Amino acid sequence: MSRTISISHYLPILRWGRDYDKVKLIDDSIAAVIVSIMLVPQALALALIAGLPPQAGLYASIVGLSIYALFGTSNTLSVGPVAVLSLMTAAALSKLGLSDSSQLLTAALTLAFLSGVFLLMLGLMRLGFMANFLSHPVISAFITASAIIIGLSQVQYLLGTTSSGQNIVELLSSLGDSMGEVNWITLVLGLGSIAMIIWCRTGLSSLLIKMGLGSRLVTSISRSGPVIVALLTGFLCYVFRLDQQGVQLLGVVPAGLPELTVPDFSLELIRNLFWSAILLSIIGFVESISVAQTLAAKRREQIELDQELIGLGAANIAVSLSGGFPVCGGFSRSVVNFDAGAATPAAGLITAALIAFFALLLMPLLYWLPKVALASIILVAVYPLLDFSAIGKSWNYSKTDFVSVSITLLLTLLVGVEVGIASGVLASILMHLYKTSQPHVAVIGRVTGTEHFRNVQRHDVETFDNILSIRIDESLYFANTRFLEELIFSLMAKKPKLEHVILMCTAVNAIDMSALQTLEKINQTLNELGIKLHLSEVKGPIMDKLLKTTLFENLSGSNYLSHNLAVEDLKD
Amino acid sequence: MSRTISISHYLPILRWGRDYDKVKLIDDSIAAVIVSIMLVPQALALALIAGLPPQAGLYASIVGLSIYALFGTSNTLSVGPVAVLSLMTAAALSKLGLSDSSQLLTAALTLAFLSGVFLLMLGLMRLGFMANFLSHPVISAFITASAIIIGLSQVQYLLGTTSSGQNIVELLSSLGDSMGEVNWITLVLGLGSIAMIIWCRTGLSSLLIKMGLGSRLVTSISRSGPVIVALLTGFLCYVFRLDQQGVQLLGVVPAGLPELTVPDFSLELIRNLFWSAILLSIIGFVESISVAQTLAAKRREQIELDQELIGLGAANIAVSLSGGFPVCGGFSRSVVNFDAGAATPAAGLITAALIAFFALLLMPLLYWLPKVALASIILVAVYPLLDFSAIGKSWNYSKTDFVSVSITLLLTLLVGVEVGIASGVLASILMHLYKTSQPHVAVIGRVTGTEHFRNVQRHDVETFDNILSIRIDESLYFANTRFLEELIFSLMAKKPKLEHVILMCTAVNAIDMSALQTLEKINQTLNELGIKLHLSEVKGPIMDKLLKTTLFENLSGSNYLSHNLAVEDLKD
Repeated sequence: MSRTISISHYLPILRWGRDYDKVKLIDDSIAAVIVSIMLVPQALALALIAGLPPQAGLYASIVGLSIYALFGTSNTLSVGPVAVLSLMTAAALSKLGLSDSSQLLTAALTLAFLSGVFLLMLGLMRLGFMANFLSHPVISAFITASAIIIGLSQVQYLLGTTSSGQNIVELLSSLGDSMGEVNWITLVLGLGSIAMIIWCRTGLSSLLIKMGLGSRLVTSISRSGPVIVALLTGFLCYVFRLDQQGVQLLGVVPAGLPELTVPDFSLELIRNLFWSAILLSIIGFVESISVAQTLAAKRREQIELDQELIGLGAANIAVSLSGGFPVCGGFSRSVVNFDAGAATPAAGLITAALIAFFALLLMPLLYWLPKVALASIILVAVYPLLDFSAIGKSWNYSKTDFVSVSITLLLTLLVGVEVGIASGVLASILMHLYKTSQPHVAVIGRVTGTEHFRNVQRHDVETFDNILSIRIDESLYFANTRFLEELIFSLMAKKPKLEHVILMCTAVNAIDMSALQTLEKINQTLNELGIKLHLSEVKGPIMDKLLKTTLFENLSGSNYLSHNLAVEDLKD
Repeated sequence: MSRTISISHYLPILRWGRDYDKVKLIDDSIAAVIVSIMLVPQALALALIAGLPPQAGLYASIVGLSIYALFGTSNTLSVGPVAVLSLMTAAALSKLGLSDSSQLLTAALTLAFLSGVFLLMLGLMRLGFMANFLSHPVISAFITASAIIIGLSQVQYLLGTTSSGQNIVELLSSLGDSMGEVNWITLVLGLGSIAMIIWCRTGLSSLLIKMGLGSRLVTSISRSGPVIVALLTGFLCYVFRLDQQGVQLLGVVPAGLPELTVPDFSLELIRNLFWSAILLSIIGFVESISVAQTLAAKRREQIELDQELIGLGAANIAVSLSGGFPVCGGFSRSVVNFDAGAATPAAGLITAALIAFFALLLMPLLYWLPKVALASIILVAVYPLLDFSAIGKSWNYSKTDFVSVSITLLLTLLVGVEVGIASGVLASILMHLYKTSQPHVAVIGRVTGTEHFRNVQRHDVETFDNILSIRIDESLYFANTRFLEELIFSLMAKKPKLEHVILMCTAVNAIDMSALQTLEKINQTLNELGIKLHLSEVKGPIMDKLLKTTLFENLSGSNYLSHNLAVEDLKD
């Protein structure tokens, strides 16, 4: 009995699969068609961003979608290659100094494998909370900077030149060097493609709505801009032999399904890819659950963080064994899947089957697809990722967040994705510690005629020469213990008649060991000077913990239930 | 005018020097005599721990004390080589693979220089708060583990054998290998020395008190155990030519004052020592200000953190230019200085002069000093550093602190000081984030007939089907935004008739950008489901910040001054 529960816990498909019916099948199938139309050209393009052969993108999509459908808890998350992970994969591979394309693919497999193992381990150890260490503005800045780098990396295809680089400095200088070789036919094809995709989403879409077509059909057609562009540009290249005019074609893409591949488990390679895999896993996980959580909440469904880690981990391991590269849940495709009415993870399975059908039968058509068409598709896809509002908002709302945002944005753009995101995480943690290390505190006095205590600097209140009342608006922990000590000793130095120090603890949500020891030390030092230390209004859960220590035995003063009781008791 | 203020700000000697008088001079001189008696043998031994020639310890003391006296703000802090920094210096130098002693000394100078520059920069940039990132239990565990390693590293001198290693595994196996070569005369000298030093502090000390001697004189004599031991064992070696019996002597120590030395500024060396210098600086700074702050508070004096950084930075740079190695404020010597009545930093200057006198005239005597005497002095000196109470206390009081303590202790002992302290800092920060990422929360209801709201699980309270009241006992920031989101959506799923969610914010001390965006997202998602989000009892400083945002414009619900007003307004 308990064994069955445990299996279905780790294999959610056993739960939703039991109630699967025809209505859900129809919903899932429609969503699958729409998503796969969108996904095929994107998957090809994303493989190129990662520096891998185009079919790798299809394999990663087929396998990623299928395996996630077995293990994942989101009904609508669409897993596959995504832009930011492709860029991070390219950055990780670029450090290895490989040029042989089969070696590059093997390294990408290893990266996906390491990332899968890491995600799986986090999931099994229930460490999903690690994703919380990424602050929203930092993620937003990172994604914006990544989109800029991805966009710049596609400009070479738009111009028909070549460039390379992992940051804007390298990319711009490399593009500058190749400006003499611009192929104007390529550029025209590219700009035309971009215009076409945008028009499908906007002009065509509103036209169709006016014509009274159903919303699902409209969504489906408006999302097929990339496919239309691929067909049209491919047709033009074939008819006018544009390759002879210098337009770069995708070339031969082997037809067939994913085959078994084996990552390279050499210690050397694992060591070189280790941190890349961890950064990439965290980014992939955060991107996946952000969208999964948002979509689930809209239908009052729930996802399980630790099981999501297992699902994404399994998907990445499977991808590494079948010629793919790192995958996660994509934002726009999941939203499309959701809007198109996907009811269960089966939508992902059907999408995978449709893409497999394409890979098996229609690959030869890709020969004539110009690379510039894929670049246009990517440029339109990453444009919505640009979001500079975090800069302005954080400047207005929180300077510490602004510092983290600026560091992430600048370092990602100027140095690269890995340094950028690692610095961003570090900066946001240090900024948080910095902020809480200097908490808001108030010397308080009593509002005359009441039992309320307020900041002496903001209100007209009564104070007593022999009492120092302090309210600290922060949990007491290692980062602010020294602040507390300094605060009390410096305030004390200004009150020659002082006999009692009372700490009001209404806003103290926790007291860690460092803070406990500091309170003991302050108590002892004050005691030697003939001053008593008191606490007031300590919260229940903290009180429970403090009672296990010797603090109250050694406290020179008392612990009062209310600050007013303390003052009444101690005033001259 | 403002220029004068600024100079005396950075040179505190200009402040206290103005009021210097004869009474203070006498106090300072007495303290200086007592401290220098204690310091000379320790300084020699600490140089040996760092793997450097013994005179380096004297030079570091002379220069460290003098320069700190000009820049420091503590009247009683005694700066010089200390055990933990000597050990960290040895660990840093061991990574370089040097064997030539002049190269080692040059590397030590470079380490001191880097550390000095780092401390000075932190001070000038007013970044003293960085020291706060070390939690008390982590420091305590680190010092305990360091003391064990130092103690073990001295056992070779006690046994007259040789051993080496940076952690207990290496030291124990190295000692085990050399057990055949134990020199019994050395061991007897060593155990005798240890007994002698302890007796001076305990037996002799109480004897002298009974004889009615003044307390300063008693302190001074009880602290002179190391000097007595040095004289006695040196005399025995000279008379009985114990060096011919295999007792290792200190040998020739050149007489003279510190001379100008130049650190090695090669990029290679700086890169190798960079992180060591930073870890060492932080440990040195934390040790210094902990004792300086404690001693200052006892006399109602104050120290300035940023000026302390400048003082310690200047001392380390000066030490690097005069043949020394990294220094900081020592715990026991500062306490002795304080107890002996030091009134101003001039005590440090006089101590430096006394040690210089010794270095100039009495060095030849050191030839006959056996190394085992120095090892005994160190063993007695580091014994009080052993403090295992943090393990038990943290186990009882806070499991997250226990994790950090265990990691620091084990990694320092088993791997080495640098890995140990770096892991400890990281662990305590991650544990803090972990703890605050899963804050205490309560679904609350109204205590019937009152306006008070309490946890529904702990109290018998009234709730309403259309209202979900939640109190979060933690600041809202990036590490717990996902928790908040999950919490609300999972609680919501259990209340089918839900119309209003009210967050009670009495214990929310801060809301960062991530949390703000999460609140906006929750508001939007709830709104789409026809549920309104409300806030109650938001604190003044947070309210000020939130009013600068669009949160309240977009909020589907309202912001209430009291939770009871909200419930009265919204209940069915």
